This record gives sequence, structure tokens and C-alpha cells, in this order.
Amino acid sequence: MDEKNFKLILAYDGRAYEGWQRQLAKPTIQQVMEDGLRQILGYKTTVISSGRTDTGVHALHQVCHFKAQTTLEPIIIKKALNSLLPRDIRVKQAEEVPLSFHARYDAQSKLYEYRILNREEPDIFLRHYVWHIIPQLDLANISACLSLLLGKHDFSSFRSARSENVNPVREMLRAELEHQEDGLLIFTFQSDGFLRHMVRNMVGTLVGVGKGRISVSQFQEILEAHDRCVAGIKAPAQGLFLKMVFYK
Amino acid sequence: MDEKNFKLILAYDGRAYEGWQRQLAKPTIQQVMEDGLRQILGYKTTVISSGRTDTGVHALHQVCHFKAQTTLEPIIIKKALNSLLPRDIRVKQAEEVPLSFHARYDAQSKLYEYRILNREEPDIFLRHYVWHIIPQLDLANISACLSLLLGKHDFSSFRSARSENVNPVREMLRAELEHQEDGLLIFTFQSDGFLRHMVRNMVGTLVGVGKGRISVSQFQEILEAHDRCVAGIKAPAQGLFLKMVFYK
Repeated sequence: MDEKNFKLILAYDGRAYEGWQRQLAKPTIQQVMEDGLRQILGYKTTVISSGRTDTGVHALHQVCHFKAQTTLEPIIIKKALNSLLPRDIRVKQAEEVPLSFHARYDAQSKLYEYRILNREEPDIFLRHYVWHIIPQLDLANISACLSLLLGKHDFSSFRSARSENVNPVREMLRAELEHQEDGLLIFTFQSDGFLRHMVRNMVGTLVGVGKGRISVSQFQEILEAHDRCVAGIKAPAQGLFLKMVFYK
Repeated sequence: MDEKNFKLILAYDGRAYEGWQRQLAKPTIQQVMEDGLRQILGYKTTVISSGRTDTGVHALHQVCHFKAQTTLEPIIIKKALNSLLPRDIRVKQAEEVPLSFHARYDAQSKLYEYRILNREEPDIFLRHYVWHIIPQLDLANISACLSLLLGKHDFSSFRSARSENVNPVREMLRAELEHQEDGLLIFTFQSDGFLRHMVRNMVGTLVGVGKGRISVSQFQEILEAHDRCVAGIKAPAQGLFLKMVFYK
């Protein structure tokens, strides 16, 4: 039987998982997906995503692929997986794709959303899905900083302290803030790639701007310093959602 | 010290609780509230709500009152309670009210919302807060039935099988369906009072209408039968929210 390549679109609630990547001790999305597929296929296959998400980060639209020798139709694979998977991971779509498709290497850009609830009262129904910040943030200054992020930059200042040996230059295609009703602030970042913890470090620093601790010109200096030690705190994982992965 | 009367507005996520009313074995909202107040006041006080909510039912706005001899300002009671309560119960507001105020007897009407997700794909972030129904429901027929519910009726057909010895006549002030984006259906019911399980029994029967199992004229017959045995199934608790309590 010929090998086939399958593309899946997933959504998951990251609360119960130590991120995407398979680990020995703790449950991860990759592990749960591979365990499910092994039950369906009868053998182990590796599931490769568009990129890792960190512990506790959510996904509205994560893309992954796996190879298998099977006669099962994609819709059957989707239904079988959804019947096996825990309720906090869902396969939204499954399709067969050319063998050359690679969820990570072929991704052209990704879009993340970060949600802040900026008001005095918490919302108990959003409590696992927003960063609750009581002091009123200065949204004009935050927006001014967002426009500084657009275009190609060395984003070293916003990368993880556990630095990896990758090129820190990324092109930011969108960096926007939407102020919804009832104090909900939605940040949208689209880039050709994100460094580890980059969105959370940017948001944490932008909140410092919103609180008046960091000026717009200081934010510019932080971006240009290319030094992780100068930026603000890292925003908590629970407000972060992988919202879209774009391919050619 | 004179006795004072305090009114609280609460929100809670009902998932972890066996409803409002204090029980011996299982955690309830009333019990958690009374335990919190005992820590603050140093003695036990009874917390009386506008009405019981059932196991698993949520509240966006529940009203309750308690009496206490204390010099604590309402805002301090609110903050102290919120620091003690679990994260799935929040005091939204606290105020001192006349001694005569009674959360239950003075309530003139209540408004409940019931949320159905009517589409093929579940939404993992709403999974604890909607009733997920895949077959497309006939919303025109449901709306026709909703208008039959308006006004004064004997609602015995929609009361709990564990019947209580109360007058089953209630006046329905609002019975509406809003079709939001992405398949979210929001039912709104406002009445001068609700019988036990009444909203869930009405919604379960309306879903039978939406699926074509019950016609609009059969729904009318069910309402007029005043007999619990003729109505449809009871909708699950997780889609139900107490949204408002109205006082004079």
C-alpha cells in the first residue's frame, strides 16, 4: 500500500497539556494525537505540527500532518480521532495532501491572538482564557508601540531567556489591538515566524507600556536593544491562542 | 450593635457545585458563601438567594441577602469574600439594604438564558456552557412555540417529575430565541417565577419541535395537558444561566 500524507486542523484547550511536543512524563498534544492515531492505524506515526505551542497555550486552528499507509478516508480518520480524543482536543478538518506537504516547513505565516480582560471585575467564564488586569491600560500608547513592531526586526529582546540558536529576524505582518466591549482587549500578531515566548514577552512589555512604566520611546529602545534582559515580564500562557496558520 | 441586611450579586460557574442549596455531603453555592461569611464575621449567618439553581446550572447574576451585626462596609465584605471564595464564584456587588429586603420574596421576575450550539462542529471553549446539537433545528417552528408560552399558563407539563406542592400557574413575560453567529442559539425566558426544571423541560421540548418530532400544535397540546409525562426530554444543566433577577 502506498504511503499517504494527511493534514489535520486541530483546536485545543491548552490547560491540561504541557504544550505540543511529546515528553516522557507529562501529557502533551502531540502525544495524545499520536496515541489516538496508533489506535486507529495499528502502528505508530509521528504527528508534526506547524510549530510547538507552550504549556497552557490554546489553539483555535493548529495545523499538523502525519504519514500513514491506510485506506481510511480522511473523514473517517477525523471521526475516529474525535471519538477517541479527550474533549479538550478536537479535529476540525482532515484531508489528504501531497506527500511533499509539511505542516512546519510550508507554513508561510502564523497568527496569534492574545486576550486581556482590562477591568476591575473578573469574568468567571473567561477566567482560564484571558489575562485579567485591573488598572486601566493606556491603549493609545500601546497602539503606538504596536506599529513599531511592524516590518522586519531582530526580535531578540522578546525571545525566551532559554535562547535557541535560530535567526532572530522575523517580519511582523500584523500587530493590532482591538478594544471589544466589557473591557476585553484582543491583540493580533501575524508574522512569518515567532521566536519562543515572543508573543507573551511582547504582550508583557506592552502591558508595561499600558501601565505607564515603559514609555513609547523606551519600547522602541527595547526592540532595538536585541537583548532579552531589557524587556518586560512574560504574559501568562492562558491568554494566548494560535488562531491561524497560513500556507501558499 | 444593630442588625444590618446585606444584598449581594453573585456570578458562578455551576460545574463544580450541587446547585445552590446547602446539603450535607456535596458542595453547594450556599454552603461556600456561608462558610466564607463565617470566616469574615466570626459567626454563622444564613444566605438566602432569589431561588435555588440546580446542580450544574450557572449564574451571571444571582441575588442573595444575609443579616449580620457588623461594622464592615459592603465593599470590604465584597473584597474579603472574593479573596476567600473559590475562583468559580464571584461577588459582583455588595450593598446594605433595608432590613425588610428579602432576595426571594421580593423578586418580581427572573430571567434565564439557555444556550445551544447548533452546528456539526463542537466548540471546545464553550463545551461546558452550551448544549451541543448537531442536526439543524427548525427555528421558525421553535419561535412559533415560544409565542405560545407567553402570558399566564399552568406550566405543570414542564415542571419537574419530582413535583412540589406549589401553584403551577406562572406568567411568562419573555420567551425569545436569538440566532447568533456560528450556530449559537440563545433562548431567553423571563417569568414571575419558574417551577423546578421548567426552563430545561421547555427547552428540551422545543428541541423536539426543532427536530420535527413534535409539531407546533402538539406543543400547544403539551402545554395545555398540564401533565409532565407528555413533554419532551429535559435539556442538560450546562446550557442554563440565571441572567437577571428583577426587584421593584
